[in-house]
Amino acid sequence: MPPLKPYDRALPYTYAPGAFPAMEAIRCCPGEVERLLIHSQARPELRDSLTQAAQAHGIRVEEADRALSRVSGKENCFAAAVVRKSALPMGAEEPHVVLHHPSDGGNLGTILRSALGFGYRNVALIRPCADPFDPRVIRASMGAMFSLRVVQYDTMEEYRRDHPRHQLYPFMLTGSRSLPQVMDAGVPPLFALVFGNEGSGLPEEFAGMGQPVRIPMTDQVDSLNLAIAAGVGMYAFAQTALNG
Amino acid sequence: MPPLKPYDRALPYTYAPGAFPAMEAIRCCPGEVERLLIHSQARPELRDSLTQAAQAHGIRVEEADRALSRVSGKENCFAAAVVRKSALPMGAEEPHVVLHHPSDGGNLGTILRSALGFGYRNVALIRPCADPFDPRVIRASMGAMFSLRVVQYDTMEEYRRDHPRHQLYPFMLTGSRSLPQVMDAGVPPLFALVFGNEGSGLPEEFAGMGQPVRIPMTDQVDSLNLAIAAGVGMYAFAQTALNG
Repeated sequence: MPPLKPYDRALPYTYAPGAFPAMEAIRCCPGEVERLLIHSQARPELRDSLTQAAQAHGIRVEEADRALSRVSGKENCFAAAVVRKSALPMGAEEPHVVLHHPSDGGNLGTILRSALGFGYRNVALIRPCADPFDPRVIRASMGAMFSLRVVQYDTMEEYRRDHPRHQLYPFMLTGSRSLPQVMDAGVPPLFALVFGNEGSGLPEEFAGMGQPVRIPMTDQVDSLNLAIAAGVGMYAFAQTALNG
Repeated sequence: MPPLKPYDRALPYTYAPGAFPAMEAIRCCPGEVERLLIHSQARPELRDSLTQAAQAHGIRVEEADRALSRVSGKENCFAAAVVRKSALPMGAEEPHVVLHHPSDGGNLGTILRSALGFGYRNVALIRPCADPFDPRVIRASMGAMFSLRVVQYDTMEEYRRDHPRHQLYPFMLTGSRSLPQVMDAGVPPLFALVFGNEGSGLPEEFAGMGQPVRIPMTDQVDSLNLAIAAGVGMYAFAQTALNG
């Protein structure tokens, strides 16, 4: 087998670092897992459970201390799955989450984890965006990345061409309706929650798309952290639309 | 003036690094700001607005490139306020947020920012906990730290002795009622939202305190990120209790 390289966006594979994300990769997409790396100092229970899961799917297991520290950039990473990058198309008949120019990988991973937790399985990323296959994103997502359909688009228009029927809800500080008002008005079955960049939010033209939503907040803060805004928005819509 | 030291929990002062947090410190607690540090390469608008704000309160302004990189640990920190540590008591007649053993400073800062955004002004931290005065926490809080009353307690019992009348809502994966159910049941004016550690959540004995709350989530994830769970809980209670 060729030596494993430090992660790079151009590589055809990525790493799921950490026991939980590695296990999620094996559980959710075993066909894409090329190898499982385990540290010689890993706890026996960890080694056994991961090895059993891998072997059940015919995945090769290697003790690879140096490769682990090289690919994870950390000394205390005890396991990682080597996973081929792949992307399934978004579900055309399910709700979407759209992230416009998300730049922080940690935020992106946290949002992916929240999305899966609140029942959203489809996420569009409008470029430029953080790399969803970056091992740090996979770790922050706790492996949620492997259960989601995450698709990258060059522009919002390109996303709209693929999914013209979704009602858009752009989250903006200047949104014409508050989140509770939008919940009271009801939500159609096909919708897309749209969140902007960490620093700059959504461009002003998004105010003309669908129903802009404002999360009520005091005038003591400028804005909320992106992952918090996305978490609150996804939660509220999930209660009204997905479970209501 | 004595030379400024790299931040340490034992120091009587801390740093608000970055233009926005530094400005918040000057705006919210000018009496505690000892000095304002500005980098020689700071943009003129930034320099002018910070300098004016500082001088309006008689705060000494210094050009201090080396001190800035030393205290912030970053090369591109263009301003920082030096702020005396102080803590006002929590408001006895206002809602509280209680964080039990929060260990991650970034999460803590994000939660403080969300708390202020959703109208909570009082936060109790049960030790061991991340240091709320750590400059990284202040930065993640975007300076919200300076508008809040953040009090540290050694134990939950100690907090309860100070504030026995608050109805407790511990957030637990096993909470006996879901968040929407709790909202439907209504919320008393004096309440405390209690959140556990990032990895281990709240200890089981919290299930016997007040009304344990479960945030509805799919079985596809183990849990939510702490800052997300806290953000969702604070938002929901704010809509029902603070603004409703």
